[in-house]
Amino acid sequence: MKRFLLIVILFCFSFQFQSQTDSIFIRKIYDEALLRGKAYEDLRQLCKDVGPRLSGSSEAQMAVEWSERKMKSYNFDKVYLQEIKVPHWERGTKESAWLRTKKGDLIKLHILALGGSIGTDGLLTDEVVEFTSLEQLKEAKKSQVEGKIVFLNQPMDAAQIQTFKAYGLCYGIRGNGAVEAGKLGAKAVVIRSLGMPIDDHPHTGTMHYEENITRIPAGALSTKDADLLSETLKKDKVELVLEMDCRVFPDAVSYNVIGEMTGSKYPNEIITFGGHLDSWDAGEGAHDDGAGVIHCLEALRIMKELKYKPEHTLRVVFFMNEENGNMGGKTYATWVKEKGEKHIAALESDRGGFAPRGFGVDGSDAHLKFLQSLASNFTQYDLHVFEKGYGGVDIGPLKESFPGIALFGFVPDSQRYFDFHHAASDVFESVNKRELELGAAGIAGFIYLLDTKFK
Amino acid sequence: MKRFLLIVILFCFSFQFQSQTDSIFIRKIYDEALLRGKAYEDLRQLCKDVGPRLSGSSEAQMAVEWSERKMKSYNFDKVYLQEIKVPHWERGTKESAWLRTKKGDLIKLHILALGGSIGTDGLLTDEVVEFTSLEQLKEAKKSQVEGKIVFLNQPMDAAQIQTFKAYGLCYGIRGNGAVEAGKLGAKAVVIRSLGMPIDDHPHTGTMHYEENITRIPAGALSTKDADLLSETLKKDKVELVLEMDCRVFPDAVSYNVIGEMTGSKYPNEIITFGGHLDSWDAGEGAHDDGAGVIHCLEALRIMKELKYKPEHTLRVVFFMNEENGNMGGKTYATWVKEKGEKHIAALESDRGGFAPRGFGVDGSDAHLKFLQSLASNFTQYDLHVFEKGYGGVDIGPLKESFPGIALFGFVPDSQRYFDFHHAASDVFESVNKRELELGAAGIAGFIYLLDTKFK
Repeated sequence: MKRFLLIVILFCFSFQFQSQTDSIFIRKIYDEALLRGKAYEDLRQLCKDVGPRLSGSSEAQMAVEWSERKMKSYNFDKVYLQEIKVPHWERGTKESAWLRTKKGDLIKLHILALGGSIGTDGLLTDEVVEFTSLEQLKEAKKSQVEGKIVFLNQPMDAAQIQTFKAYGLCYGIRGNGAVEAGKLGAKAVVIRSLGMPIDDHPHTGTMHYEENITRIPAGALSTKDADLLSETLKKDKVELVLEMDCRVFPDAVSYNVIGEMTGSKYPNEIITFGGHLDSWDAGEGAHDDGAGVIHCLEALRIMKELKYKPEHTLRVVFFMNEENGNMGGKTYATWVKEKGEKHIAALESDRGGFAPRGFGVDGSDAHLKFLQSLASNFTQYDLHVFEKGYGGVDIGPLKESFPGIALFGFVPDSQRYFDFHHAASDVFESVNKRELELGAAGIAGFIYLLDTKFK
Repeated sequence: MKRFLLIVILFCFSFQFQSQTDSIFIRKIYDEALLRGKAYEDLRQLCKDVGPRLSGSSEAQMAVEWSERKMKSYNFDKVYLQEIKVPHWERGTKESAWLRTKKGDLIKLHILALGGSIGTDGLLTDEVVEFTSLEQLKEAKKSQVEGKIVFLNQPMDAAQIQTFKAYGLCYGIRGNGAVEAGKLGAKAVVIRSLGMPIDDHPHTGTMHYEENITRIPAGALSTKDADLLSETLKKDKVELVLEMDCRVFPDAVSYNVIGEMTGSKYPNEIITFGGHLDSWDAGEGAHDDGAGVIHCLEALRIMKELKYKPEHTLRVVFFMNEENGNMGGKTYATWVKEKGEKHIAALESDRGGFAPRGFGVDGSDAHLKFLQSLASNFTQYDLHVFEKGYGGVDIGPLKESFPGIALFGFVPDSQRYFDFHHAASDVFESVNKRELELGAAGIAGFIYLLDTKFK
């Protein structure tokens, strides 16, 4: 009985000691991030010294080299590149749209070609026909659409509290608008930008074509211009004049950029965390996803700075090409499986550099239970979301390579995200220093707990 | 037994019915705020058409008239003014500071006089002596300070997760710096701004003098200039040249602006909710406290729009003079007591227009329990703070008039607040539309639950 009591006491003591150790170490992480953090300056460099970095562009290559040098400067145990093939699309230099009516309106509109779109081959002028959803377009007759420019005007639903849900509900008009309009013989498609505010910034993003359906040019109007066009259409027939000389080039060579701290106990068991290095060419990719890669870079830098000895190998991956192909994520998942590595969990940050709210998990009930068991570590840091959710596009393919893997997604506040997403307004100045730093600290703390607690 | 069962079933049914009613009504509130909200446009008018509105200024009077007209336009049951007396201080037109050293530095600094400060009466030039806290100054000898300009250089502690706590820790250098420096014979005091970022914006705010201690001019340097001054002092003796022609005028007449929906069951039982209409003269008082008054205005507008029949009288108060005297809050608390009204609870919004996190309560354990019982109503709206906290400066005096009253404070995310607080950067553009609207909806939902559930 005495011996049993002793064991119980030792167990309780060690448990308390462990959780005190955790709380002290997590506090150190936050202090490093908030008092001596490098995240904000690193993001400034990535946004201002490198700039936007669309897959296949020279800036994307510069971003790869900048990232490799930056990781080396932080003395990670290993820093290396993983070669991949990426799509290469360029916006070109001509991009304009204006509307005209018989009654005399002649108004220039703010437009961005959608990523992957073909160009207009000079001026393209046709009558506009409006639909308020992809479903409405699908139900249309060929005679309504043929030879016209389809205008898909579905606003993001402001009543959705989770803005990503509002985005998801509109995603179809961007992703599939050209295919559905093409089926009905349209000459081009313009969509209302997937942006929450009513302003002058068009939001670009990827779209796709399908075999055997005529490819037509596709662009996004600013929300303000979408309202204007819709109002004008109520009064008169409207012609749209479009010019875009964007085009697709042969696939290009590019790289994922990888930095590691080698595991002391389980070097072949990997915890991957990262975001994507590529961005759209409008803006500077500050929230999407400069913030995400910098979050993860800073998290590993903090671990190194605090002389943490990880049990597992902690690997930061700056994935290339999330925006238009996800070749970084797909190639990585295949490659690490072929190498015979063991991957038990991964985390992605790709929802912007806003104030942290918590983490979501795409995994089993046991994974959810594990996630919820971490919540109390973060109460004093204002994190409160520990629930089922989505991991991220880049880490998604790991699921096929490692069935049963737990994929975690960092969840910052989402309210301002779709002010900036894929628009010229997504610049360094739109990221708040403290919010960015708190994100990096939260992720570092989370990776520490994954390393020490996850089974 | 059958009868007992029936009662239990009816009770459960009515409970479920009630909570369904709550959830439907709160959803309606959010829809109105997010889809047909007036908050953002109303804040634009207050910031741009009226502008900054320091107590005693003509803009403060314009703000009173704008508020009264706005409330009347929303057809509240009663709209009226409450006359009060307020301090009247003016910044004047001359405000500059520059440093010089013998080695040749001559650099202009960004300065704002602190509210209530006397002027310099022309140029004031003296040697600078630096202290890093009020405590360090208090321990200094007269010989160290006499005839000099005291520089209080205490940075806000970035490691504090709750920025209001970091603010509280520095408050003394602004509030009491002139008194402590004056005791030791200083000629003037300049403080490091109570702002979180390192930038060029000085942050003003109120300060005080004491009887029998020589009054000296007091100003705030931008955080960047405070760093510069401190660095320069490490290398050389530094003289500061100050000019400020701010001054105090006789007290002025002003007003609290009040709008009501009359209670259908308990018209003499009042639920007060509000913020303060006055602001500092730098910036436009957008977060402090334009957002707060607009939150509450919008909350009552939504109730009216949804044809809600309140049980208690719901009263929005736009308090005047929170920033430098709190005469609005003090006079209101006395007046309503004299009128014989019954006040059981009040709420204040004075922490900016950021994404809502929840509510705090300054009250009894029973009040805390009540607050926590409301949490589940707000889970889907991302509110998670339901804890002990601070009500607000304006509603604080109600405690003396009505001991036992519950004072609630609206708690938005605090991370960006001290980027803008009392600085020229606190303009309309710094407020996000959705974040503002979500605040108004959260407050409207909370007031509804207070009206129907609070005992």
